[in-house]
Amino acid sequence: MKRGFASDNNAGIHDEILSEIASANSGHVTGYGSDVYTEKALKLFKEHLGPSTETYFVFTGTAANVLGLSSILRSWNSVITASTAHLEQDECGAPEKFTGCKVLTVETPDGKIDVSLLDKHMHGFDFEHHSQPRVISITQSTEMGTVYSAAEIRKIADFAHSKGMLLHMDGARIANAAVALNMPFKSFTTDAGVDVLSFGGTKNGMMFGEAICFLKPGLSTDFKYMRKQGMQLACKMRFISAQYIAYFRDELWKKSASHSNDMAKILEKKLEPIMGIKITQKVQSNGVFVIMPYDVAERVRKQFFFYPWDEKVSEYRLMTSWDTTEADIEGFVNLLVKELKK
Amino acid sequence: MKRGFASDNNAGIHDEILSEIASANSGHVTGYGSDVYTEKALKLFKEHLGPSTETYFVFTGTAANVLGLSSILRSWNSVITASTAHLEQDECGAPEKFTGCKVLTVETPDGKIDVSLLDKHMHGFDFEHHSQPRVISITQSTEMGTVYSAAEIRKIADFAHSKGMLLHMDGARIANAAVALNMPFKSFTTDAGVDVLSFGGTKNGMMFGEAICFLKPGLSTDFKYMRKQGMQLACKMRFISAQYIAYFRDELWKKSASHSNDMAKILEKKLEPIMGIKITQKVQSNGVFVIMPYDVAERVRKQFFFYPWDEKVSEYRLMTSWDTTEADIEGFVNLLVKELKK
Amino acid sequence: MKRGFASDNNAGIHDEILSEIASANSGHVTGYGSDVYTEKALKLFKEHLGPSTETYFVFTGTAANVLGLSSILRSWNSVITASTAHLEQDECGAPEKFTGCKVLTVETPDGKIDVSLLDKHMHGFDFEHHSQPRVISITQSTEMGTVYSAAEIRKIADFAHSKGMLLHMDGARIANAAVALNMPFKSFTTDAGVDVLSFGGTKNGMMFGEAICFLKPGLSTDFKYMRKQGMQLACKMRFISAQYIAYFRDELWKKSASHSNDMAKILEKKLEPIMGIKITQKVQSNGVFVIMPYDVAERVRKQFFFYPWDEKVSEYRLMTSWDTTEADIEGFVNLLVKELKK
Amino acid sequence: MKRGFASDNNAGIHDEILSEIASANSGHVTGYGSDVYTEKALKLFKEHLGPSTETYFVFTGTAANVLGLSSILRSWNSVITASTAHLEQDECGAPEKFTGCKVLTVETPDGKIDVSLLDKHMHGFDFEHHSQPRVISITQSTEMGTVYSAAEIRKIADFAHSKGMLLHMDGARIANAAVALNMPFKSFTTDAGVDVLSFGGTKNGMMFGEAICFLKPGLSTDFKYMRKQGMQLACKMRFISAQYIAYFRDELWKKSASHSNDMAKILEKKLEPIMGIKITQKVQSNGVFVIMPYDVAERVRKQFFFYPWDEKVSEYRLMTSWDTTEADIEGFVNLLVKELKK
Repeated sequence: MKRGFASDNNAGIHDEILSEIASANSGHVTGYGSDVYTEKALKLFKEHLGPSTETYFVFTGTAANVLGLSSILRSWNSVITASTAHLEQDECGAPEKFTGCKVLTVETPDGKIDVSLLDKHMHGFDFEHHSQPRVISITQSTEMGTVYSAAEIRKIADFAHSKGMLLHMDGARIANAAVALNMPFKSFTTDAGVDVLSFGGTKNGMMFGEAICFLKPGLSTDFKYMRKQGMQLACKMRFISAQYIAYFRDELWKKSASHSNDMAKILEKKLEPIMGIKITQKVQSNGVFVIMPYDVAERVRKQFFFYPWDEKVSEYRLMTSWDTTEADIEGFVNLLVKELKK
Repeated sequence: MKRGFASDNNAGIHDEILSEIASANSGHVTGYGSDVYTEKALKLFKEHLGPSTETYFVFTGTAANVLGLSSILRSWNSVITASTAHLEQDECGAPEKFTGCKVLTVETPDGKIDVSLLDKHMHGFDFEHHSQPRVISITQSTEMGTVYSAAEIRKIADFAHSKGMLLHMDGARIANAAVALNMPFKSFTTDAGVDVLSFGGTKNGMMFGEAICFLKPGLSTDFKYMRKQGMQLACKMRFISAQYIAYFRDELWKKSASHSNDMAKILEKKLEPIMGIKITQKVQSNGVFVIMPYDVAERVRKQFFFYPWDEKVSEYRLMTSWDTTEADIEGFVNLLVKELKK
Repeated sequence: MKRGFASDNNAGIHDEILSEIASANSGHVTGYGSDVYTEKALKLFKEHLGPSTETYFVFTGTAANVLGLSSILRSWNSVITASTAHLEQDECGAPEKFTGCKVLTVETPDGKIDVSLLDKHMHGFDFEHHSQPRVISITQSTEMGTVYSAAEIRKIADFAHSKGMLLHMDGARIANAAVALNMPFKSFTTDAGVDVLSFGGTKNGMMFGEAICFLKPGLSTDFKYMRKQGMQLACKMRFISAQYIAYFRDELWKKSASHSNDMAKILEKKLEPIMGIKITQKVQSNGVFVIMPYDVAERVRKQFFFYPWDEKVSEYRLMTSWDTTEADIEGFVNLLVKELKK
Repeated sequence: MKRGFASDNNAGIHDEILSEIASANSGHVTGYGSDVYTEKALKLFKEHLGPSTETYFVFTGTAANVLGLSSILRSWNSVITASTAHLEQDECGAPEKFTGCKVLTVETPDGKIDVSLLDKHMHGFDFEHHSQPRVISITQSTEMGTVYSAAEIRKIADFAHSKGMLLHMDGARIANAAVALNMPFKSFTTDAGVDVLSFGGTKNGMMFGEAICFLKPGLSTDFKYMRKQGMQLACKMRFISAQYIAYFRDELWKKSASHSNDMAKILEKKLEPIMGIKITQKVQSNGVFVIMPYDVAERVRKQFFFYPWDEKVSEYRLMTSWDTTEADIEGFVNLLVKELKK
């Protein structure tokens, strides 16, 4: 299979994670999470996110978002998010189907929500005809590769809390954000006022398994039933837990995400001077968004796979991953330059 | 962790399956199932279940049942199953939540449905006040370790089809049934009239990942959206597919399930002559159900873990698995005899 | 249209109720319940059921049951009811669809639940694989026309509360029960431990509109959103409220239900001595259940309409209503006797 | 209660409609729609909308929209509507809760959708990660009182059909639109390509009861179960049907809606010349939208009730109804002028 920049989930499993799975594969353990690996992994989340953190593992990023939200929403609530958010664009209506809630959106060119954008949905409180706004959901790092500062997050959290609302973070790429900010996870989540967090690992070298982290007490009452009813209770849960144990050990997460972010920076640097290529978003994590001629893109994609982002303006998304090499970038850029000259 | 007879999912991953995952962990592949491993795995299912078979992978047995059913049910339908069925007892209402349907039950001491039991739910057709009966769901092998013959299945299928209904099979332990029947999968599924099948692997040595097999054309239209909206679309799907490749290669499934069933037979043989122990179900696959004195069970469970089945009559469930050893059985039976004498 | 004993809802609107609608039809009032008629009607419910009663009007009995239950259930809960209950047999799965919950049943020949029957569902508490039992739902008077005594209700309520569960009553025919018991509504609802009540009026002379009564504080938080989202918020609500005003004035409800119950008694008395007719349930409210020869029933039904109840044993249901006349009964019985002689 | 311009549903029941209810209130008829009144009413809908029309009565406008849509949507679909649409703003998430679908919106100042606005949602077809666009829903007349021409509707219908999508119309105020267009209903619904129609009556003098009209064959298969499961099957349905019989007889609907529209025109004419008042939308049906000083509005509202529309710009909505009088308008305008001078 050809390599490319299609998605950070096209890469495989980091060796240290696969080894840890093998290590955990010995003898019998109780299913569904009553095992020493899970106990250890859950403790690690408390260390990284604060002692009040209650963590539940699920299988997919969609499930992490939907189930995490379901714990803090009732069906007559609405959740407000960027129009580019995964939960609006890429979950096939799973939030609506599972929670019964309305997803409201705001338009934001860089994928980041600003408090000023939220105003248009701040009405109808206590009015039974209208879905009650209850949660703001932000993505860190965003679908455009941009990154919220801790202060920006704090501002949204304060706004949410001032309205009796909660702040949810889709952290499918949270490691890339942590590296970008050069901060521990806790500083821009728990400490910045986030209430519920989807903490992803699959896009940064895990095989599968995402974590839903309730960062404050009282948010996950009865959540064990929601996870089971949501069809996300892993029977051999030790093999998700083991992955997170490896992920946190010796900051594997940081090494992988740093590499990935670095590769994006290199890619950006090489693309920037090329005539006919326009970079459309700040490169803050592991995505590079570029406009290039359609026919050039088509020809390059035959060798290095990547996806169109906005076909109307011939914009493309280039994602780097923990296993992207400088040779990948070299090869890609060389081909691109060649094709541009045709 | 102490070994025991708690559940076949307390065992780990078969080495050949873990090796196959490692083999598939090379380079980039497209996510969500557009990869060569998945292509190969799906082909294997066609070989085992017939060329019309359309297979979709999901993460859990609950998801396999619920999503498979959702493809052939609308919310005003009902599904009829044994009162002991996993989908009635052990899925926390996931079928009702996701499909909106009514689950109706029949009482059956050995977990097997007989057509005569279904009669009480065969009414209200075309009457808008009443949930419309649409699917019969059987479990093979059953929660009690009993096994339907192909003829028994055919009879239920014919009955279902004569009523305009469909037959679903929960095959979380289908390999154990196949070994018990000494038949290829196809003979007691597709060829016996089953319409939709949950084909399990996790209880027989896989890490995770179950298959939903639509055995006849036209049953899975739009199913890809249901799986995604059901939060069950695996991003790195190659690692489910790889497991099934190993599972079918050289009949690994059969070796594992044969071993498991054999261990149950040995266990049965050793328990049968013991005074104070009563075996309550036919031992046809990998479960042995026994009544034993409560205090004895409590003491034995400290060393060999297993679960109560019906506390009112002091009945317990003993499950063997692909990694159960004769030494496990020896140790357990010796302890049991010793405790019975106290 | 021929008259008959098909259902108490085949009768029309009591004149006093229709007059009250006309009286309320004057000028403008705010929609959705902020009007003087609704204010007055809600107060009447507090008078009849106790000062903590919070009442919400909806359109149908199914909606009253489903929405009332939805306020005290989360999707991972189960509700236990008689297998003959309206919410199990006659709501087309609306409870499952709207609440996501599992409906569990007990078999009871006279439609009345006894605590001893509930035992089989009292397990799996706190076990995330299992729907959590949360509500017991009884019907007063039952679908078989039988009536719970206040003491019987109290016993079920105490049982429910001892398990951390709640008691729901489907009172589609509550007026008939009140008359049968010769008790005020409060004595066998609020005072007997009922938590949530569907208080019906349509089967006793109203045009449409049922009431959901939350009998204890704290059970209806956010319920206004559930009703609206459940599509049951009446725009011109004054016309439901006006009906209840008339219904309670001068005990119209009692006069109508007394008449209806009396007619059932007369019908019973006339049927009892007839050879070939067997009365199968105690006649305690406004239903008479009889076994009669199939061909006789078919011939009589051409002139007096009524429904089969259990076709296997040729059992039929005869419902009397607020407008049943002695002449109706006379005519029906005469024809029946004539047909039996053929 | 003070009169006003709050909503056309603050008015009561037209006398001819109430009389018809009384006429239908005689003797027994079968419940749930198997009666002569319903038969006649359904026939009238075929006469007005075309012979393929299949009509089902429900209780509320929200139910008409949600259930009508549910018949043509699966949960992984999306429905696109104006951001001001009732189904987006005023149904408390009922569409999402009941259908599981995503509601997507377009911004349009006058409440009318233009095909060019739809483009942004026309992507992701056949892509399982994305909710599949399936229905466009327009409101006629719109929440802003504007009216689509038949040609405008045809253009949207053609666009929808060209994409394999369907066109839904929320006709809560369809009579006002018909009068505005001076066209029979059929010309701008069935003949203009509309597939499913919510045909309202409550806002034009009925007591309750809305109609869902499937205008083409094959769209309402199994719909009877959806209505029942949606808790919208009226037991004494004759009293909805009777209202529609009166509504269509001698064009009562047209008289009422004409009056209402005429009153809006008069109101517009009187407001237009007033300094300090700005009319913000074309007055095409029975709504007049005006900007006026906040404090003036507050004072006038004490005597003539009406609602703010957009508080940020001090915009108010004035609705006329079938029972609005010229004296109402006179009084209101006089007071307004007086208050403006203060």
